[in-house]
Amino acid sequence: MKIEQQHIEGVNKSYLKSHQENYDFLANNLTQKGINISNLLGKLKAFQVAIPSWALGAGGTRFGRFSYYGEPSSLEQKIQDIGILHALTQTAGAVSLHIPWDIPEDYAAVKELAEGLNIKFDAVNSNTFQDQKDAKETYKYGSLSNTNEAVRQQAIQHNLDVINIGNQLGSKSLTVWLADGSCFPGQNNFQTALQNTENSLKEIYKGLPSDWSMLIEYKPYEPNFYSTVIQDWGTSFMLANACGEKAYSLVDLGHHLPNSNIEQIVSILMLKGKLGGFHFNDSKYGDDDLTVGSIKPYALFLIFNELVYGMQNNPQNPDLAWMIDASHNVKDPLEDLIQSLEAIQEAYAKALLVNQTELKEAQLNNDVVKCQEILQDAYRTDVRPLLAQARLESGGALSPINSYRRLNVRETLIEERGKYTVATGL
Amino acid sequence: MKIEQQHIEGVNKSYLKSHQENYDFLANNLTQKGINISNLLGKLKAFQVAIPSWALGAGGTRFGRFSYYGEPSSLEQKIQDIGILHALTQTAGAVSLHIPWDIPEDYAAVKELAEGLNIKFDAVNSNTFQDQKDAKETYKYGSLSNTNEAVRQQAIQHNLDVINIGNQLGSKSLTVWLADGSCFPGQNNFQTALQNTENSLKEIYKGLPSDWSMLIEYKPYEPNFYSTVIQDWGTSFMLANACGEKAYSLVDLGHHLPNSNIEQIVSILMLKGKLGGFHFNDSKYGDDDLTVGSIKPYALFLIFNELVYGMQNNPQNPDLAWMIDASHNVKDPLEDLIQSLEAIQEAYAKALLVNQTELKEAQLNNDVVKCQEILQDAYRTDVRPLLAQARLESGGALSPINSYRRLNVRETLIEERGKYTVATGL
Amino acid sequence: MKIEQQHIEGVNKSYLKSHQENYDFLANNLTQKGINISNLLGKLKAFQVAIPSWALGAGGTRFGRFSYYGEPSSLEQKIQDIGILHALTQTAGAVSLHIPWDIPEDYAAVKELAEGLNIKFDAVNSNTFQDQKDAKETYKYGSLSNTNEAVRQQAIQHNLDVINIGNQLGSKSLTVWLADGSCFPGQNNFQTALQNTENSLKEIYKGLPSDWSMLIEYKPYEPNFYSTVIQDWGTSFMLANACGEKAYSLVDLGHHLPNSNIEQIVSILMLKGKLGGFHFNDSKYGDDDLTVGSIKPYALFLIFNELVYGMQNNPQNPDLAWMIDASHNVKDPLEDLIQSLEAIQEAYAKALLVNQTELKEAQLNNDVVKCQEILQDAYRTDVRPLLAQARLESGGALSPINSYRRLNVRETLIEERGKYTVATGL
Amino acid sequence: MKIEQQHIEGVNKSYLKSHQENYDFLANNLTQKGINISNLLGKLKAFQVAIPSWALGAGGTRFGRFSYYGEPSSLEQKIQDIGILHALTQTAGAVSLHIPWDIPEDYAAVKELAEGLNIKFDAVNSNTFQDQKDAKETYKYGSLSNTNEAVRQQAIQHNLDVINIGNQLGSKSLTVWLADGSCFPGQNNFQTALQNTENSLKEIYKGLPSDWSMLIEYKPYEPNFYSTVIQDWGTSFMLANACGEKAYSLVDLGHHLPNSNIEQIVSILMLKGKLGGFHFNDSKYGDDDLTVGSIKPYALFLIFNELVYGMQNNPQNPDLAWMIDASHNVKDPLEDLIQSLEAIQEAYAKALLVNQTELKEAQLNNDVVKCQEILQDAYRTDVRPLLAQARLESGGALSPINSYRRLNVRETLIEERGKYTVATGL
Repeated sequence: MKIEQQHIEGVNKSYLKSHQENYDFLANNLTQKGINISNLLGKLKAFQVAIPSWALGAGGTRFGRFSYYGEPSSLEQKIQDIGILHALTQTAGAVSLHIPWDIPEDYAAVKELAEGLNIKFDAVNSNTFQDQKDAKETYKYGSLSNTNEAVRQQAIQHNLDVINIGNQLGSKSLTVWLADGSCFPGQNNFQTALQNTENSLKEIYKGLPSDWSMLIEYKPYEPNFYSTVIQDWGTSFMLANACGEKAYSLVDLGHHLPNSNIEQIVSILMLKGKLGGFHFNDSKYGDDDLTVGSIKPYALFLIFNELVYGMQNNPQNPDLAWMIDASHNVKDPLEDLIQSLEAIQEAYAKALLVNQTELKEAQLNNDVVKCQEILQDAYRTDVRPLLAQARLESGGALSPINSYRRLNVRETLIEERGKYTVATGL
Repeated sequence: MKIEQQHIEGVNKSYLKSHQENYDFLANNLTQKGINISNLLGKLKAFQVAIPSWALGAGGTRFGRFSYYGEPSSLEQKIQDIGILHALTQTAGAVSLHIPWDIPEDYAAVKELAEGLNIKFDAVNSNTFQDQKDAKETYKYGSLSNTNEAVRQQAIQHNLDVINIGNQLGSKSLTVWLADGSCFPGQNNFQTALQNTENSLKEIYKGLPSDWSMLIEYKPYEPNFYSTVIQDWGTSFMLANACGEKAYSLVDLGHHLPNSNIEQIVSILMLKGKLGGFHFNDSKYGDDDLTVGSIKPYALFLIFNELVYGMQNNPQNPDLAWMIDASHNVKDPLEDLIQSLEAIQEAYAKALLVNQTELKEAQLNNDVVKCQEILQDAYRTDVRPLLAQARLESGGALSPINSYRRLNVRETLIEERGKYTVATGL
Repeated sequence: MKIEQQHIEGVNKSYLKSHQENYDFLANNLTQKGINISNLLGKLKAFQVAIPSWALGAGGTRFGRFSYYGEPSSLEQKIQDIGILHALTQTAGAVSLHIPWDIPEDYAAVKELAEGLNIKFDAVNSNTFQDQKDAKETYKYGSLSNTNEAVRQQAIQHNLDVINIGNQLGSKSLTVWLADGSCFPGQNNFQTALQNTENSLKEIYKGLPSDWSMLIEYKPYEPNFYSTVIQDWGTSFMLANACGEKAYSLVDLGHHLPNSNIEQIVSILMLKGKLGGFHFNDSKYGDDDLTVGSIKPYALFLIFNELVYGMQNNPQNPDLAWMIDASHNVKDPLEDLIQSLEAIQEAYAKALLVNQTELKEAQLNNDVVKCQEILQDAYRTDVRPLLAQARLESGGALSPINSYRRLNVRETLIEERGKYTVATGL
Repeated sequence: MKIEQQHIEGVNKSYLKSHQENYDFLANNLTQKGINISNLLGKLKAFQVAIPSWALGAGGTRFGRFSYYGEPSSLEQKIQDIGILHALTQTAGAVSLHIPWDIPEDYAAVKELAEGLNIKFDAVNSNTFQDQKDAKETYKYGSLSNTNEAVRQQAIQHNLDVINIGNQLGSKSLTVWLADGSCFPGQNNFQTALQNTENSLKEIYKGLPSDWSMLIEYKPYEPNFYSTVIQDWGTSFMLANACGEKAYSLVDLGHHLPNSNIEQIVSILMLKGKLGGFHFNDSKYGDDDLTVGSIKPYALFLIFNELVYGMQNNPQNPDLAWMIDASHNVKDPLEDLIQSLEAIQEAYAKALLVNQTELKEAQLNNDVVKCQEILQDAYRTDVRPLLAQARLESGGALSPINSYRRLNVRETLIEERGKYTVATGL
């Protein structure tokens, strides 16, 4: 299934009048406040978030998985799904592949398909947390950190293979998420594990094409429940520094201990020129991988406030690799992703409304009340008409969720693919 | 200092035109969605939150306290401060006294003062976590739970005295917050401590006037750092049941373990007819006592969503005692309270916008995406024009914070009271 | 494979001399302190912990599973595994079945097999968190709490079926763990979900044989990541009270929010006569299901201190259903269980050493230092010779782990069963 | 009051016989395992922990403080108290001064007093979290991170003054704990705050004598409740690297988010040669400052396991500055410190028992069960006779707590000092 422009325009008709009123009123208000609307719309339109190839199917937990109907069962179908998302939202113009789940069989065909849907190939993700059939070595006790050199070599080679695959598709970065760690005190020598990891990452770094970045993810726990080798931003930062200037930290919102101040981490990484990528999701307890903005939308706004500040003031960072990393256990994955994309754009738009000049002045005056007023004024603004306008101008849907339903997307996919298909992934 | 109607109207003038436009536009939009605006405004106007007498001065931490200028140094001045808050916001029409910090010397004068400012006397708070000069017994090792009967008797008698004081002022409820607990394993016998507490509470309950309620607060830790006798809602609920039908649980937003689902606790207590009171604040780490809505405004909205549902569907509960329980370490206490009051009204207004009928239907259909859309639609609405209109109709300020500053309230208070005054409290 | 007495005695020989010296020295020391050793040994020997049928195979996480060799692939083989554990440790004299993973085909044969190994059938566990093939209704949106009556009926009937199966084997209790809850705000009506659950539990309770107990487990999150219907002990306690006197709360050590004081919960439940069962494991972050005592052994001791106190002072509780509920991701499951059993016995033995009379006196004197000294004195005692002696007197191994290895148990199982078998379970 | 050798020997008499039996039995057992007892005793005797000058009086919380009797009211009396601790335990041979609470009036006299009690002057601590009387600038909005240069200069100068004071007493390191941070989103610019802090620290570093170290403490929250400038080890490590090779991180056990793996942080800092100091305490919820080892003794052991490993394998680190940083709210401060010292020695002794060779081998074999057995074997050993022997050989008390009580220390102090004295500090 492919959504055509005319379908979207058809559905948009019924929302157009009220949208125009709402947008005009808001735009007028913001203009009076001194905000350059076309500049703002331009930024919203340019902001594209990658969809990982494993997010198009239903997710699960260790207690089981309830499948969804009409899931994509091939890489091509996954890209089609992202095409649908992008057509509706105009903000999902990239795919992030997970290897070995999504190795293309026909590179040219896959690239052509993606190009036709305006989808780029963003960061590629390696997998050394599961054993593949016929794998010689097992990752049960770690991969890049393993005490056994043969295992480390296999894991390094896998990452080099992933780079190679990504390179053929036009990707420009490799994301390394390491499940390595330990389940019990004493199981690992922390120092050896870190040193092995550093050496392995340096080997991979050597194989990085000159215009590529390496993004090093961190996570405090799960699937290992006592320690993780790259447990926090400090460790990731240290490893990125050790590897070189093309290595960066990657922040996944769900990968933090309770009560972490993530926006501060983001800000400091940007100050040091070491923020390379971002995985969006939301959570209440751990790495819950819930829809972006569904639990703590103000925290998301505060993070975007730092991102916007950093993008303006810290040119030492690369263009960030944005990606949604959520799991879809009780919702239609495509609808869930539409909600996530909306929440991201909303937080970004609100952060763009923050009056940085006034904020700086209030900070210098220690006018804490005013500082809060400035952030809350931006956050409390209902920016939905702005997001709709940005989509409209790009050819997207005024109301993506409603359009998705009115266009019977899921029903069509089931018809095309059958009901009981299963996507690769977690 | 007393703020007169004409002062407020004077300042309102400059905001009136743009307010009217914003309000009309929003009201029109909401009306089209089927919302009864005057009904909604009526609820907002009726919603009054008590200000505790200790919140008018600067707070502190165990590492010290930085005082604020012009703090009220008598009960009368505290009530004047609340009068200022109420004049501006029209939502702070009550005071909650802390005994022995605020024992009136002249009851009639205090009542007259409060009446003149339209301020009621809400729940009175006892204090058995500090030793008063000349106290016979010490609360170092507990009060209502103490193994020593003489200590328990002193604490019981204090609570009865507090009821008596409150009764003379028109209060109708007693809030019992118990710091009792232990700092080390083994220090307390958990069972004895709970039984002593239950017996002590029953004694206090016996002294409760027939039209009074007893509100039992819970808290997991601090100032005791190993255990607290009334550690959670389950214990509070159990004790309220043991005391009788005039005893209820009181929820303080900061008194929960990390990641607690507070809205569910609120909902279940209302289902069981045992929610009696509410202390508002916000926090990131523990009982941080920050400005309401400054950290997790969506969680506040979700809590209000349950409160609104409960007020509509659970008549088994009493009118709730609403109070702000925050500490003001780096802001002008009055400005901080204005921000808290605004955040409370905002969350309440948004919760009132939730379409309960559609939500119920979506829940029955397990349409999780729709459920989220309904809540987010309400939450994303910018309700500030509604709050302003409610204040305007009640004679309050369109912009309380700006009016407070333009009217030079703090400067006037410093002039009247002197700079280096110190309010009683924490 | 079955371990015979002579095998154990054979291995014990090499440990006997040093054991005897250590035991004599410790027994002498403890006797001088006024402790009745034979009484203590008697309690240790009587303490039996059930092994759940799903714990004999390797566990996994949502990120995958690394299997172990020689796993049991039938109920009979699982019981054989427990027979091995029991022969070595003499403390694993019960099995806890999970239905539908372990429905006996031949009841008589299964009972005879268990009897021959001295293994009893403890609590049976129902499963309404996964969909079984050919199930008519899905539990995707809940089971006992579902808004759809047909789903609730199916889940109720399943529990009744489980009771029936357990009844034929000699079980006397049903454990209900409910995964029900929600992943997103708004998805569930908290009140409806709780009321449905209460009604469903009452239906199941009606089908309970007169000499059975119903154990209601609680858990704050996972697999649902926003709310759980039975989120904490307070909710479980409320439901148990609503059902009747044969309904109790069940505490799983991993099912609590960060920093919870679990020993206090245990103590209060025992005070109220509502503690019915206990699931042992350990954790650092969430429901990590690690080996008992591997992360927080002092917390385990403090919990046992309350259990011992309760067993002596709170006759209102039933005999508790003890079970290990751990997952074995990186260890041989049988070795892991041996380590868990040892940790449980250790904590129990140390708790039995606490001088309750002196502790009570110190508590009454508020001698906090002494209270701590008393607990730490018991905890710091090396009780391993006591545990070994209890095993020796019961015919078990002086050193279970070493005996397991020396007797080549796993190698034999692999030979008998093959390498790549897979046990049912998570 | 000064405890003389003969007093201690007098009390020791009654414990000597049973101690000798216990010690001989344990020493014999350990020797058979290949452990060099005299080597081990030597390490225990050499291990000295500093007592901070503020820990000799009762602590408190923001809810109040219950004072203790006979508190020291001068620096001389504080040193006398430490002399008592050291005489009894032989492990408290250092004092850590807090400036400006403990500025000596007569340096020579203070040094002579300390020397006579065998007490050294360890790290000196600056205080820029409170305003001192007559201070020109306020730290309300930060000190080294303040946006106002004059405030930063005052704070820098204070640190230089503290170095100067320490230098006259023989101290060799400065500990910088910074309360700087913010209470609300937007209050601080994270990047500016960090850069100001880095520049200020560099200024202080310039004033460091050539044989001194600068120890940079980190803490995630409190007294600021939204953000802290030096929030975690990563930030502290980054700052230490920026300052130079004499700058190190300092780990305070209570300064971490829930569930942090502190032993891994310790290990990594040692690998990188950047661990400079250690503050001991224990906690269940936050920075509770409880007696060392009273809540999580196994975690303390695991940390010591890394410290022992690092001291053997990471010569790149300096001699660590060990200090107890606890607050004494419900215990006699001296008894509390005795319990802390005992817990530290216990954890250290057990860590010294770990067979590092076998552990390494088990780790290389991925024998996770064995790794755990090795750690638990060490931890489960009752090492109290070893600690007693080490004290005995150094002239200390076999049972410090009992000796303290039998020698009527507190009663004598009250007699000498009066009951209602108050120590400076928190």
